[in-house]
Amino acid sequence: MKPALNSHLKLLRKLGQRKYREKEQLFMIEGERAVEQVLENGIIEVESVFVEEGKAISYPLLANSFSLLKDMLNELSDTESPQGILAICKMPKPISIEGLCNVESGVIVATNAIQDPGNLGTIIRTASWFGCNAMLFGKGTVDAFNPKVVRSTAGATGVLPYLGGDLNEILEQLEGNDWDVLLLDGNPGSQPINKIPKSKKTVLVVGNEANGIDTSLINPKRKRVLIPSNEGIKTVESLNAAVATSIALWSVNN
Amino acid sequence: MKPALNSHLKLLRKLGQRKYREKEQLFMIEGERAVEQVLENGIIEVESVFVEEGKAISYPLLANSFSLLKDMLNELSDTESPQGILAICKMPKPISIEGLCNVESGVIVATNAIQDPGNLGTIIRTASWFGCNAMLFGKGTVDAFNPKVVRSTAGATGVLPYLGGDLNEILEQLEGNDWDVLLLDGNPGSQPINKIPKSKKTVLVVGNEANGIDTSLINPKRKRVLIPSNEGIKTVESLNAAVATSIALWSVNN
Repeated sequence: MKPALNSHLKLLRKLGQRKYREKEQLFMIEGERAVEQVLENGIIEVESVFVEEGKAISYPLLANSFSLLKDMLNELSDTESPQGILAICKMPKPISIEGLCNVESGVIVATNAIQDPGNLGTIIRTASWFGCNAMLFGKGTVDAFNPKVVRSTAGATGVLPYLGGDLNEILEQLEGNDWDVLLLDGNPGSQPINKIPKSKKTVLVVGNEANGIDTSLINPKRKRVLIPSNEGIKTVESLNAAVATSIALWSVNN
Repeated sequence: MKPALNSHLKLLRKLGQRKYREKEQLFMIEGERAVEQVLENGIIEVESVFVEEGKAISYPLLANSFSLLKDMLNELSDTESPQGILAICKMPKPISIEGLCNVESGVIVATNAIQDPGNLGTIIRTASWFGCNAMLFGKGTVDAFNPKVVRSTAGATGVLPYLGGDLNEILEQLEGNDWDVLLLDGNPGSQPINKIPKSKKTVLVVGNEANGIDTSLINPKRKRVLIPSNEGIKTVESLNAAVATSIALWSVNN
């Protein structure tokens, strides 16, 4: 394995920032199992792999693999306990809204303004598990190719088609093509998610962790739904955003 | 507000460690909303509150409140963006197993060896939301009063009765009193959780994030259950442990 070049290091450092990820259309995946998955799955194109000098990896690597000093890998790593391997991957292309309009049935998950990387990654992971049609990332949502998000997806990055942009615009287009929009909203007036009639084409919209659904998204044709609590005395304010989304996805799928 | 004493600082520093939390039977809660909740709920006894010097708090504090320099609070804080307030709280007492044996119906969540503090906190939060009867913390589970766990419960720490110890011993005693044990286990041979008959008294056992349910817990009278995936091609390995637990709790409750 050849040692990494200075140009590699420069690129890897840049990929910590969203603007460079978008400019280069590249992102990083870290960790032994995560890199193995991405090489196995073949969904994401891997450009190059960087391994800690002297570290044995149990699976075959790319021809385009380079060794890196431990200190350097630790510096580039986004985690507290780096695992000595990372890969530069090509960002998959977003899909077009038209492709989603013609789908016959399914579920789409839209994030209004999820800001915690762990929550977004977990939502992507669950949506992939349930075979959703797509992820829509509304403005204000943390970058789906942020290293912490990628780590929290546990290998599900790139599994689902995705699209980013103005959520109201996208939702209106989908609604014009018979998609029903559910707004996950714990506020009074929302209906328990298991009490609403099932729909063939459901877009589930998840709001911000602290502020919930943006009021600009609320309108009479969109149903507001919640995960009902069984708690007797009201001491727990809410569910975690990724948990609420996951239960809602289970409910609309079953 | 009087300034904090050196003895306070010494205690606060110690409470970062499990052995001191257990010895003193005290733990820390951090953040403006979290401290407010604990003062409001009255479930947890608050011993003293520490506020950043000069910081205005929008709710009434205890008589036993002290000011602390910002640097000192930041040092004591477990978070990357400290909110300038923390409280020392009394650890609630664990319950006895006998109290759970005589319950007529309900759901108990047992953690086999959950190690991620965020996952444990989220599981406690969801179990509280669904009004479970108790939490059982098996050996190998991260301390429920660890600051990261407490933060992830988002105010649900202390809401549910709890008990720690050898999980097999506790489960056997519960099984002798008509509790049915479900093992959440994604391995082959497990049944989809929505296909099993409902039980009046359910203990849901959650395994370790990487290794799943400990084999010593598996026996023929305990049903192994999973959250079925709808994914066509198998690219996603698993759900997040807190998400899987939450969906399972929703399923046994609905």
